[in-house]
Amino acid sequence: MATPTPTRSPELRRDPVTNRWVVFSPARAKRPSDFKSKSSENPNHNSSSCPFCIGNEHQCAPEIFRVPNEPNWKHRVIENLYPALSRNLEYPIGQNGDSSIDLGGWGRVVPGFGLHDVVIETPVHSVQLSDLSPSELGDVLIAYKRRIEQIKGFDSIKYVQVFKNHGASAGASLSHSHSQILSLPVVPPSVSARIGSMKEYFNQTGKCSLCEVQSKDVLINETSQFISLAPFAASFPFEIWIIPRDHSSHFDELDNEKAVDLGGLLKLMLRKMSLQLNNPPFNFMIHTSPLQLTNSELRYSHWFLQIVPQLTGVGGFELGSGCYINPVFPEDAAKLLREVNVPIEG
Amino acid sequence: MATPTPTRSPELRRDPVTNRWVVFSPARAKRPSDFKSKSSENPNHNSSSCPFCIGNEHQCAPEIFRVPNEPNWKHRVIENLYPALSRNLEYPIGQNGDSSIDLGGWGRVVPGFGLHDVVIETPVHSVQLSDLSPSELGDVLIAYKRRIEQIKGFDSIKYVQVFKNHGASAGASLSHSHSQILSLPVVPPSVSARIGSMKEYFNQTGKCSLCEVQSKDVLINETSQFISLAPFAASFPFEIWIIPRDHSSHFDELDNEKAVDLGGLLKLMLRKMSLQLNNPPFNFMIHTSPLQLTNSELRYSHWFLQIVPQLTGVGGFELGSGCYINPVFPEDAAKLLREVNVPIEG
Repeated sequence: MATPTPTRSPELRRDPVTNRWVVFSPARAKRPSDFKSKSSENPNHNSSSCPFCIGNEHQCAPEIFRVPNEPNWKHRVIENLYPALSRNLEYPIGQNGDSSIDLGGWGRVVPGFGLHDVVIETPVHSVQLSDLSPSELGDVLIAYKRRIEQIKGFDSIKYVQVFKNHGASAGASLSHSHSQILSLPVVPPSVSARIGSMKEYFNQTGKCSLCEVQSKDVLINETSQFISLAPFAASFPFEIWIIPRDHSSHFDELDNEKAVDLGGLLKLMLRKMSLQLNNPPFNFMIHTSPLQLTNSELRYSHWFLQIVPQLTGVGGFELGSGCYINPVFPEDAAKLLREVNVPIEG
Repeated sequence: MATPTPTRSPELRRDPVTNRWVVFSPARAKRPSDFKSKSSENPNHNSSSCPFCIGNEHQCAPEIFRVPNEPNWKHRVIENLYPALSRNLEYPIGQNGDSSIDLGGWGRVVPGFGLHDVVIETPVHSVQLSDLSPSELGDVLIAYKRRIEQIKGFDSIKYVQVFKNHGASAGASLSHSHSQILSLPVVPPSVSARIGSMKEYFNQTGKCSLCEVQSKDVLINETSQFISLAPFAASFPFEIWIIPRDHSSHFDELDNEKAVDLGGLLKLMLRKMSLQLNNPPFNFMIHTSPLQLTNSELRYSHWFLQIVPQLTGVGGFELGSGCYINPVFPEDAAKLLREVNVPIEG
């Protein structure tokens, strides 16, 4: 029989980066080690009908580039066939960089100009991102970087959101392993809030909040260039952040050597999460900085990668308040993830 | 054969109340009239094992009050058996009302003091909120008000979030119709952002943004005291706001007459949503103001009730950016909901 975990009191914690209050509520939890995904496997459609499989390139929207640039590609960056934003709209450049139209009581509006790209991570239908080698995973990260460098040429793009949805309940509409790059003509609200929160910390301490991040008790793994941890005020159970050790504002500052290092740590986190939580649906998001930053903003803006397994739903409390209820303390999640025994691939 | 809807371009809209950018993306949509919930019916457990059914009161956490105060009750307010926050924790009252502890690089922390109550809306297992008469629904709203008035006695409570989760995928763990009241020792981030956004509008125009709300094209229905509309920058397809016509900062200013009027409009919106969208899981949230407001804040803070059917999931883009992608323009949602033919109950 399992020993019960000692009773802990609920706590509210606020993260210095996101500035979000999170309710830690152990009374509502199973034991942390009992958290397992219940969702059914990702529907793995027949690869003959999958547009992302090698040989089916003609079923896709136009290609932006492939790596390597030959028929036998390993990664492809293509346009999204159903883009959320349109690359063909006129986008008026306004004074002071703000081209939104004020409609008074209605709010503000801008044309839906933007770029919505897809990164096909592998030519093979059954291969998952965590099956790639650290070096191959590094190549996917470098493909993100290369695409961001192209996007910087669009004056009206203010922010580039790189993200991955894995599993239907995490928002993936196709099971072939892919990620997405959505480039926006506005700086999104969570990004402004994050930069503002990092600025506040910097003004108080003279330091960057993520250079100073405390990892005692919440560290999962580390490499020469990156650390992975369960953030102190995680919004979601088993949420993981991967943070570059050296100060860096923009993801696209990543060089080839760091990309392989990050690829290895990302692979390890995805494998540990899958083993501990029964291959859950998940999202990851690269939290970089807006394309245009002042020199002072560069001093306190520090990019990181966030991984969120989809284990709990969102209800009216979260929608209403913007607070999350997390039944698992990050210290407990970190300990479990630190100790996952990862079999050597062979 | 249905006529196709004309092609529309994507748009980004920012609401003056929530200050959130939303991507309206018709390319990703079915026709608005094709939106239907696919989720299976709410699991309707046997009422003999349901703690919220009349006769099973002993299975519940302690009662706070019942209406009417007799064995044959119509509504009960009880403590949550699995509270997210604890009413039994010591809560230190700090200087300037802020009692959170600064942990430097870790963030801030406060003990998880708070109240988590449940409102059982009906004694009968199979009755849904929208089955109640306007007057009975008004009594549920007055029960919220009465409980909020009690909670005001706790000095350390800063905000009261009233919400309802209907359906398992909207976060309901019991199918017997109920709502929840979660009282927090901090003002949640979305609430601060909303009040700040309303302040900004007031500073620019000298008016309250919700007194001035534009309802042309997005109006669904109206009564003598309330209007219901699809907000101009709705985050979710078929999202509905019900707004008091007269300026009012706090939900608990509701009197008995207005409660019946609101009850009737809420009932109509829930029935229309159910008919149009195939009885979807949904949440509603009462967006009131923090308990302590200054006189100037009272001038621009205006409460409203938000209803969100759960039709689309949240993916990495929304988690990362805080922007939502909405495939249905509010004008189209409002037109469909305006025209739903509601059968007369008999």
